[in-house]
Order: sequence, then structure tokens, then C-alpha cells
Amino acid sequence: MALSEFELIERYFKRPSRRHALGVGDDCALFRTQAGYQLGVSSDMLVEGRHFFRDVDPARLGHKALAVNLSDLAACGADPLGFTLALALPEVNEPWLAGFSRGLFDLADNHGCELLGGDTTRGPLNVCITVFGELPAGQALLRSGARQGDDIWVSGTLGDARLALDALRGMVFLPPEVLESARTRLERPSPRVALGQALRGVAHAAIDLSDGLVGDLGHVMTQSGSGADLDAAVLRGLMATPASSLDSIAADADYLLGCVLAGGDDYELAFTAPRHAESSIHRAAAEAGVAVTRIGRVREGTGVRVLDADGRVIEAAFESFDHFRPTP
Amino acid sequence: MALSEFELIERYFKRPSRRHALGVGDDCALFRTQAGYQLGVSSDMLVEGRHFFRDVDPARLGHKALAVNLSDLAACGADPLGFTLALALPEVNEPWLAGFSRGLFDLADNHGCELLGGDTTRGPLNVCITVFGELPAGQALLRSGARQGDDIWVSGTLGDARLALDALRGMVFLPPEVLESARTRLERPSPRVALGQALRGVAHAAIDLSDGLVGDLGHVMTQSGSGADLDAAVLRGLMATPASSLDSIAADADYLLGCVLAGGDDYELAFTAPRHAESSIHRAAAEAGVAVTRIGRVREGTGVRVLDADGRVIEAAFESFDHFRPTP
Repeated sequence: MALSEFELIERYFKRPSRRHALGVGDDCALFRTQAGYQLGVSSDMLVEGRHFFRDVDPARLGHKALAVNLSDLAACGADPLGFTLALALPEVNEPWLAGFSRGLFDLADNHGCELLGGDTTRGPLNVCITVFGELPAGQALLRSGARQGDDIWVSGTLGDARLALDALRGMVFLPPEVLESARTRLERPSPRVALGQALRGVAHAAIDLSDGLVGDLGHVMTQSGSGADLDAAVLRGLMATPASSLDSIAADADYLLGCVLAGGDDYELAFTAPRHAESSIHRAAAEAGVAVTRIGRVREGTGVRVLDADGRVIEAAFESFDHFRPTP
Repeated sequence: MALSEFELIERYFKRPSRRHALGVGDDCALFRTQAGYQLGVSSDMLVEGRHFFRDVDPARLGHKALAVNLSDLAACGADPLGFTLALALPEVNEPWLAGFSRGLFDLADNHGCELLGGDTTRGPLNVCITVFGELPAGQALLRSGARQGDDIWVSGTLGDARLALDALRGMVFLPPEVLESARTRLERPSPRVALGQALRGVAHAAIDLSDGLVGDLGHVMTQSGSGADLDAAVLRGLMATPASSLDSIAADADYLLGCVLAGGDDYELAFTAPRHAESSIHRAAAEAGVAVTRIGRVREGTGVRVLDADGRVIEAAFESFDHFRPTP
């Protein structure tokens, strides 16, 4: 504990500001948005034991803490500008801080997103990031924009993060190379920032998937006054990890569908768009370098239903993650 | 634990947005600044056992969590716009949440500062607020603006918060009515938002006092490339609590001067200004309804010195609060 609070900030978190009027080191960070633009802001707090394991690689934690916030910007179609970091640390552990700040700044630099200020204090490990992005006024992708008849799309693959979590908890067994690949999805998610921006003016509504597809899409439907029907056959193909790599418990079809529908921690985008936007969507996805899959349709009514090939509703509880309900 | 995360937000933290384009409930909050304005942003994290006692009145905690952030905006001269709240809670305690949100929103409403979004999770109690304000571009009061020959001023009174803290820790005894008044300074600080705005174009530099006068003013001097001489006789008169109310330990002159110089948690403004600004400063203070006192002068050199009536430097360690050094 030789390092003071100010030395700690100086050594691991202070860097010259390039893009903004002023960076770390005054009472406030100051910056401007372009004329005709508006600001998008989002905050996420990560707590040890709830969002990450105590022994997680600190570089991955630094990455993930910013990634989950960038994912919120992506869901609005905003261009990242900067972020503040508030950090409670149980002790000053310099190798840990070096790893954490490296993971954080590697991702930040990839997105031109600068650390603008923050706070450090002693306390149970807690990472709280607030991220700022800008976008042309009135062009944000909102949860309330879905219209009946829209197709429902999702980026990337779903469920691998949950599979990794269950493996790390000892609930399923994965071969080492499969675990490593799934674990990378859990610990180093790739926020779909470029895709979100490319979908401005193309998609009607969007959300990022942090708590699970059914739950998060449910928010879009509630705020849009509509319901959603999802195609189970398509969804079953959405997990990146091949079923052949899984043990018999993990390969159970319902378990796998549960990971895809309600696993959480995916940080992909779900969005709705009219059928005529299909080619624009494929163009946007190609530009952003990420796959997109059409998984269902917005309908009258409420709620999210999952339909089998013969159009029957699959009766299963695919509840979304809730921090104040016990972990299943 | 009957309340879900979404019900909790709905019940205690969701309110219609009045001033901004969009409030709580989408992936990002969206808002605009006026043309020619820039944004000031600050984050503070409050941790149980470090920034507040476990049994603190939740309404006071809600107040203080926002107040310490508004104080940073005040130090830049910014007009508060809104804030995000990230909250880790060990459990859902509805009376606690009702008190916390009442204290938070009472202060927010007084300053026209809206809750724009945030995050709730389960974890050791932690309150992280990020606040946004706007001010005409280029007019922010910075730590780097002090000039040699400037007068040094401070708003309000100093040291009472520390006196209350020491009394609550059982280190000094205060009569109940004195404790209550000092404790209000500790638990319900008044951010000097109006004063900060009135000092734009008048003061050269400003900072808010969270870690103690000597330490915080030291940041201004370092960033301004100057030193400061403070007048001990004036400083001795700055504590609101009369020495006659104190027991013999607390009434010790060095102890009291220590509370004023390095007590911390004052949330007053220290600022520097040229002598010819004196009448403008008194006008600004009168408009803002807060007393201001001239306490010293910016000089050549470095560091903050405290001088007795005969001009001799008082040799005493008035260290600033550091979250990573042991509590004295």
C-alpha cells in the first residue's frame, strides 16, 4: 500500500487528452459535441462475485467493464467519445492495476473513447463506468421503435457466455479449447459499436443483450406496444460452440436453447427492421464485420413467444437475469 | 427480496423527463447541450465504512451522494443538467430505498438536475453518481488558472464536518445540539452551485474542498505553477462551531486549526481572484447567499504555507485525506 491515491491515478490512469477540451485532473472533464448532435450516456456497475469471479484476469475485467458500456452506446447507434471510471479497490495491487488499465485502454483506443475523469477509493472491488457517445440528433435507435411486421434480427452468436459461466461453476464439462473459446465470449465481449452506427436509419428499434434475448427483447416489445414471435429452429443454430463438443448434460437441447434465449452476457445487438431493409442490413453487417441472423417477427399483442417448426409455442420458462432474484 | 430489479427502478427511481430529450429506460440517456456550450462531467463513488457509516440516514446519504458531485460542477462554474446513478445494494430494503431516493431527488429538484439513467445490482453498498452540467465554452473555472498576486478566498465555514466525524468516532465530545449542527455539515453538505456560476469571469481558478483545504488548494497551486500563503488568524475564525461549545480536547487550538486546514468533507469552494475583483466577488457571494472570506495570497514558489500573525510559517503536518493511506 505504498502508492497514494494520486500516484495510483497518475501511474495507471492519467493520459494526455487528444480529442476533447480537457481530460483527467480537474474537478470536471469538459467536452463539446458537434452542432446538430446529441449525447448518449450510459452507466454500468460491475461487482465482484456477481459480474465477475474474484480471480478473473484483470486485463479481461478492464476490457469487459468498458465493453458492456460501449454495448449500450452501440444499441443506440452512438459514436463513442469518452468515459469516466470510478473504481473501489480493496488494496493497491500494482500488477492487477497494470493489467486492468491495459485491458481497459486497449479497448478504449480501438474505439477512440477517452478516459475523461473519475474517482478511486478503497472498498470492496467495484468498477463503475459511465460512457458518452454522440449521434445526429433524432437518429438514436430506441427500444420503442419496433413496428408490427418488422423482422427481428440478432448479431453474432448467443449463449456461449452462459455456457462458459456454467462450466466455470462446475455445472457442465467442456473440453479445454471449447471452454477457452466460450470463456472469451464471457470475459472479453466485443461491443457491436460499428454495427449500431451502421443501423441508424435502417433499423426501427435496437437493444443490446446483457440479461438474455427473451428478457431484453421483452423490453423492446413492451416499449413498442407489440409482441414477438421467435423461430426456435433458427435459434438452436445460434450458439457458436458445436453440440458435438459438449458433454451429455450440456448437449441437452432444452439446456442449449435456454443458453441462447436467456443466458445473458451476450453483448450482441437485437434489432427490428422492415422487410424491405433486408439488403441494407446485410450491407451494414458486412461493413461492421459481424454476422446477422433473422430470428423472428414483430406481431400484435404482447410478450415474446418461441415457436417450433410447426408453429406451436414452446412452453418453457426462459426468464431474464435479475440481480435481485436468486441465481438459478 | 420480493422486488425485482426493474420493479425497484420503476418504484423508486423512474420519473418522467422534463428537460431532456429522453430519461431513464433506454440503453442510453440522450440529451443536447446549447450551441456554444460545453459539457462538464464528474463521477464520485461513495462506499460504506469509508464515506459514510452503515447506519446513516438514507435520505442524507441520497443527498450527499449527489451533493459531492454537484460540488464538482460548482467548482467549474457549470449549470447542472442531469446525472446517472449506479447503485449496488446488499438487499432490497424498501424503507431505505424510499429515504435514499427522497433525499436524492429533493436535492436534484433544487438544482434542476434530472436522473437520466443508471444501473442497479446486488453487492456491498456502493453509490456511484456521474453528473453533467453545461457552461459557455471556454469559461470553466480551472485549477490551473491561479496567478501570482491573486487573493485566495473560501466560501462558508470549514472544519465542522471533520469535527462531527471525530465526535461520531468517539474522539471528541460535543453537546447534542452542537453535534447535530456539525453532523448536518458532514451528512448534508450544500454544494455551492450558484456561487460557482456567479464566479465565472470573476475568479481565476477554483476547486471544491473534499479532502481538506491545504491538500485541495495544493492541487490548484501545482497546476498553476505557484504557491500559496494562508493567514492562520483568519483561518482560526472559519469554523462555524464556537470553541466555547467544545470539550477541552476539541477546543485545543491546533486541533481546531487542523480541522479547518485538513478536515475534509467541507464541500466549500476555494478560489483565487485578482484584488480588483473584490467587489465583484462580494456581489457574487451575496447573489448566491453564501459568505466568502479572503484567507491568503498566491505567491511565487510552490506549496501551501500557513503563516501566523507575525509572518512565521506554522510547522505542522496538515495532510490531505488519501483513501489509500491509513485513517489517522
